Amino acid sequence: MPEWRKDPVVDRWVAVSTERAKRPTDYRRTVEQTKRERCPLCEGHEGDTPPEVLAFRSIGSEPNHPGWWVRVVPNKFPACRVEEDNEVYQEDIYFKRRGVGAHEVIVETTNHEPNLVNQTEWQIAEVIWAWRARSLDLRRDKRLKYVSIFKNKGSIAGASLEHAHSQLIALPMAPIEIREELAGVKAYKKMNRRCVFCDVWRYEAKTRERVVVEGDCFLSFVPYAARFPFEMWVVPKEHQHDFVQIHEAGVHDLAGVLRESLRRLAWTVYDPPYNMILHTAPVNEAACEDYHWHIEILPRLTIIAGFELGTGYYINPTPPEMAAAAMREAGDWCPEVIGAVQEVRAGA
Amino acid sequence: MPEWRKDPVVDRWVAVSTERAKRPTDYRRTVEQTKRERCPLCEGHEGDTPPEVLAFRSIGSEPNHPGWWVRVVPNKFPACRVEEDNEVYQEDIYFKRRGVGAHEVIVETTNHEPNLVNQTEWQIAEVIWAWRARSLDLRRDKRLKYVSIFKNKGSIAGASLEHAHSQLIALPMAPIEIREELAGVKAYKKMNRRCVFCDVWRYEAKTRERVVVEGDCFLSFVPYAARFPFEMWVVPKEHQHDFVQIHEAGVHDLAGVLRESLRRLAWTVYDPPYNMILHTAPVNEAACEDYHWHIEILPRLTIIAGFELGTGYYINPTPPEMAAAAMREAGDWCPEVIGAVQEVRAGA
Repeated sequence: MPEWRKDPVVDRWVAVSTERAKRPTDYRRTVEQTKRERCPLCEGHEGDTPPEVLAFRSIGSEPNHPGWWVRVVPNKFPACRVEEDNEVYQEDIYFKRRGVGAHEVIVETTNHEPNLVNQTEWQIAEVIWAWRARSLDLRRDKRLKYVSIFKNKGSIAGASLEHAHSQLIALPMAPIEIREELAGVKAYKKMNRRCVFCDVWRYEAKTRERVVVEGDCFLSFVPYAARFPFEMWVVPKEHQHDFVQIHEAGVHDLAGVLRESLRRLAWTVYDPPYNMILHTAPVNEAACEDYHWHIEILPRLTIIAGFELGTGYYINPTPPEMAAAAMREAGDWCPEVIGAVQEVRAGA
Repeated sequence: MPEWRKDPVVDRWVAVSTERAKRPTDYRRTVEQTKRERCPLCEGHEGDTPPEVLAFRSIGSEPNHPGWWVRVVPNKFPACRVEEDNEVYQEDIYFKRRGVGAHEVIVETTNHEPNLVNQTEWQIAEVIWAWRARSLDLRRDKRLKYVSIFKNKGSIAGASLEHAHSQLIALPMAPIEIREELAGVKAYKKMNRRCVFCDVWRYEAKTRERVVVEGDCFLSFVPYAARFPFEMWVVPKEHQHDFVQIHEAGVHDLAGVLRESLRRLAWTVYDPPYNMILHTAPVNEAACEDYHWHIEILPRLTIIAGFELGTGYYINPTPPEMAAAAMREAGDWCPEVIGAVQEVRAGA
């Protein structure tokens, strides 16, 4: 089981593998793509994963057998585990803690399809319900302070399996990125007496030039200071600090807005690798109601290099307004199914 | 010229291209490797770069002609430029500023060689002198608050040119990563009355298990909470807040420690891509004396994915102690020249 170590200077925790460590020679091998016939996430291969912790499945079907449409399993190589204790230990000048938490994989479809966007809106809504159910279940453990849900699409974005899936890591501390956002939200509120995310989505919906897709409950737009080309934020119009506050109409609207945003992204820049990250309030902590949950879609068309790693600043070669206009225009004529499409366009 | 835009929630600035923007179709092309015969950084191709701002060259040789051994030129596609004004403009709820600053390329050798480690210690010392000279010159512009110096080695780490080079970006604001480190240093000092970096290098030098190379003036070690496998920090033993405080003996010692650390890294994990980042105190600002400058070497063997981008935390599959031991052991038998070597070992 990994241990979490704190950097001695900044508030940054790192999960360091101990048991299943990668030795120098392990870095010689190139990453293998999982072949369709031995993909552990495909229907019929349920025995190749740890037993499921949640599955939406047809009545009468057996756990860990076919019959499901969304399935959640523990990660085979978890970064943390609920069984561990939650103490912080001092090691002379350093601090570490055991890997308390959870690490799960949300299998987004039964068939070996890498693109979430090629699922129906109904299927994407089911994935969102699965995220919500797991977040609600895990927070019953009061030691856990944050439930991070994210999706890596494509090997450049960190996916080691091709089959469409998202991941969940529950942590015993609220991460620095979220605490900085929460501090920013509070500072803005103190100054302006309003929520910055509410102000931002209203301003974007009014000015339109960075909007990509607008639903009844969600707005998808390229943020003003986008770090990555074609970056999008999907923000609920209602002020909700916690993702699990989403209601039924919201889930369906979000599924539609997400699908449409990802479809336009895929068509505009050739089915790029991306990370999709849910940002939500910490759990089991007071005074987080000022937060405003949202989803960030970060296409990986540029490289995070020395400047970004050294400063925390970014260089974005595509103006957000140009990116949004291209994705808005793509909407009318891009195909329903993305995939082989990429090669068609690349040759155009 | 790009403009700098501030994120509305957190203190993150992004340089957004306006003039030379990348359109969606530009992302179709794969990155071209610069061929040796048309590399603009090679000796004899001085006309292919903007005129040099600094060159160490033989007496009698002409500027922008052969005869140099280290050469500094403005970046052809700069993220910022000294000619711009320094005002912060409000755009309704957002803030932006012109791209005041500088963006330069330090050419580390005359010949088309991608590995800094294959240069002599003397040549690496000359590169360090060039970093120092440019940092000293640029800070005379009192609008500039930070000089970021970094190196991207290999296309995975963000290098668009193969020829060994580092970069410098001077900024009108001290970046968030540095300000967080400065805050961490001050907090530790308030609690313990000592510098955390001084405590860290002394503890590492005493316990040895994470040390890679020790010189008279510098210690190179794998940090306790390394984010990346085989990450190294190179820390001056003397408390210096600002890189330009380095003295002559220090430059030569640093050149040796850097060369030896990079050589062991290259041999141990097959000449990996890496970012090397100088962390130093802000300039033209008071109260930075508590900072302790250092260099971070970040091998790019793992991928920065959704978890890292969403939380600011990392997962490191190789324990720092294992990485350090492997690099220490490599020292006795790894060859002086790294390069073709990689293939020899990969087939071993």
